[in-house]
Amino acid sequence: MRKEHKEVTTPTIAWENGIVKIIDQRKLPHRLEYIYCRDVKTLWEAIRSLSVRGAPALGVAAAFGVLLGIKNFKGKDKKVFVKYIFEICDYIGSSRPTAVNLFNVLDDMKSVIKNNAQLSVEQLKEKLKKKAFELYELDRKVCRQMGKHGATLIKNGQTFLTICNAGALATVDYGTALGVFYSAKEQKKKFNVYACETRPLLQGARLTAWELLRAKIDTTLICDNMAATLMKQGKIDAIFSGADRIARNGDAANKIGTYNLAVLAKYHKLPFYIVVPLSTFDLNISSGRQIPIEERDPKEVLSFGDCLTALRHTKVYNPAFDVTDHKLITAIITEKGIIYPPFDKNIKKVFKSYACPS
Amino acid sequence: MRKEHKEVTTPTIAWENGIVKIIDQRKLPHRLEYIYCRDVKTLWEAIRSLSVRGAPALGVAAAFGVLLGIKNFKGKDKKVFVKYIFEICDYIGSSRPTAVNLFNVLDDMKSVIKNNAQLSVEQLKEKLKKKAFELYELDRKVCRQMGKHGATLIKNGQTFLTICNAGALATVDYGTALGVFYSAKEQKKKFNVYACETRPLLQGARLTAWELLRAKIDTTLICDNMAATLMKQGKIDAIFSGADRIARNGDAANKIGTYNLAVLAKYHKLPFYIVVPLSTFDLNISSGRQIPIEERDPKEVLSFGDCLTALRHTKVYNPAFDVTDHKLITAIITEKGIIYPPFDKNIKKVFKSYACPS
Repeated sequence: MRKEHKEVTTPTIAWENGIVKIIDQRKLPHRLEYIYCRDVKTLWEAIRSLSVRGAPALGVAAAFGVLLGIKNFKGKDKKVFVKYIFEICDYIGSSRPTAVNLFNVLDDMKSVIKNNAQLSVEQLKEKLKKKAFELYELDRKVCRQMGKHGATLIKNGQTFLTICNAGALATVDYGTALGVFYSAKEQKKKFNVYACETRPLLQGARLTAWELLRAKIDTTLICDNMAATLMKQGKIDAIFSGADRIARNGDAANKIGTYNLAVLAKYHKLPFYIVVPLSTFDLNISSGRQIPIEERDPKEVLSFGDCLTALRHTKVYNPAFDVTDHKLITAIITEKGIIYPPFDKNIKKVFKSYACPS
Repeated sequence: MRKEHKEVTTPTIAWENGIVKIIDQRKLPHRLEYIYCRDVKTLWEAIRSLSVRGAPALGVAAAFGVLLGIKNFKGKDKKVFVKYIFEICDYIGSSRPTAVNLFNVLDDMKSVIKNNAQLSVEQLKEKLKKKAFELYELDRKVCRQMGKHGATLIKNGQTFLTICNAGALATVDYGTALGVFYSAKEQKKKFNVYACETRPLLQGARLTAWELLRAKIDTTLICDNMAATLMKQGKIDAIFSGADRIARNGDAANKIGTYNLAVLAKYHKLPFYIVVPLSTFDLNISSGRQIPIEERDPKEVLSFGDCLTALRHTKVYNPAFDVTDHKLITAIITEKGIIYPPFDKNIKKVFKSYACPS
């Protein structure tokens, strides 16, 4: 496992000798420091304080959190154990009450107990451990599969643009959009990447530039408003982005600024790729119009760190996400292959074969 | 004069009882402080330190600088006086060696002396004073004329987007693109403005939001990458931008991010207006391809005020300007009226009638 990692990326989260080891992303890019979670409370605080972020990474952190709970449970009484595990799950869930992925994983862990009522405390502990490591390994596998499919689109000598952090830091250790770059790098392909700094929270500057540099990928940081000029100058061959939620028709919600890049890509006739695991598709919604745009604290726009950039009482609009029309997307890269338009038809097809593998 | 100002804007630069009074823009938006230049050296430092910026404001500052020199010259010897004034001009020019506008104005002041060889020291002093105040009044007049023409495009209830600072702070007291808003405001029109923060130097957040708020214009600050979403949501009716240099075919160089907005405006079928005095046209160049893109210090992208946002050694691309194709520009608003496409033909026409007024 270690051997595989050290080729390109640094694991964001790992289980080491009964301890959950997490990169403290609040310290990046200036210091690579770890939080060593020996108990559920430390892990809860790591999630709460955004030391760990990104839906896949949060899911695995929650599963490992349950394992920390198990480790500290010494009794044999099943009733007490089941009550205890459910309490642990609810407690972990309270760290980021809006993170859907966290709840999905905690529900998976609860199901292990519900579906194995006949087993002893020791046997249940084993089942939960198995489940947590399955989720961990699944994320690693799925990211590498997306990377492999995406890398087929990368040619030697090309230059790509990315936004926000869809990287190792948002997953266990590989990433979605950045996983494509890691996979191409492993295949010894030569290419360059431009990273949008991604205002207001600067995940591109703080996280993406950091992890791509560590992976020795030639990376150049730009402000978000410089992307158009790069494209005009012919310096970009394609855009690779992650996404938070994809509708049945292929409309994609992602970090604010993604839609901007998609419009620019269309104008400059460049391919615009979204890289996501199938778990990101929300088949309950038919289009992006059903995705509400969450607005965040004005302070994020008015400042960075301790630097106030405008008067405190300035009116601000701070949408956290935008929705990119499926018409602007060239293809969606998943662990099951690359989905091309017409998206409604082809997304349905992938899910059909995914649910009933031949 | 004061009466007229106080309706909407605060003068950036003024001559008061032998003193040049300049807003210290380094202190904005948090404190409105003035620099009182009683001698040329203080003015030189104000220009050098970017306390005053914007081509028209710099030009008037230079002219007033010569007046500070005159004030402190006590002799009657013309030879000594002429030598002294030329030295003053060269000294002021050394404050921002790349600011073309500064040199144009200093050349104007030198010409006053060259063209009036027969006059005495006292008479030359009067001529120079007259010239400086002419330049000052011309900027005020031209900005108001642009504003008036531009305001015809503004309807009640509309919302506009602007970038960087093409405002009172870049001119004597009114602005180019923002002058359009001030003129509409004086006409009691009701409208709203969104201001792009304009990374990397945040002139939108620091200067534009500040001066529009002071003028009681309903203003909302956004990060540059949020403009596309606003347009998609139907929240923007038109974009108003300044420009630094316009080619014969209408291609416009301006602060980085302007071209991005122009592409977005095209995609969302919104009018994109450039507001500039005729002095901004460079009829020596046929298209924007002849405008070199200046790259600035990587530090500007790597940091945000005093906060370092990425690792110090991160590779950065930091173009200060971009060029917007004339095809993306709906109209260019000047002091002589609004120029519509075909730009090559219509720009020529305006300059012809400008040079030889009927």
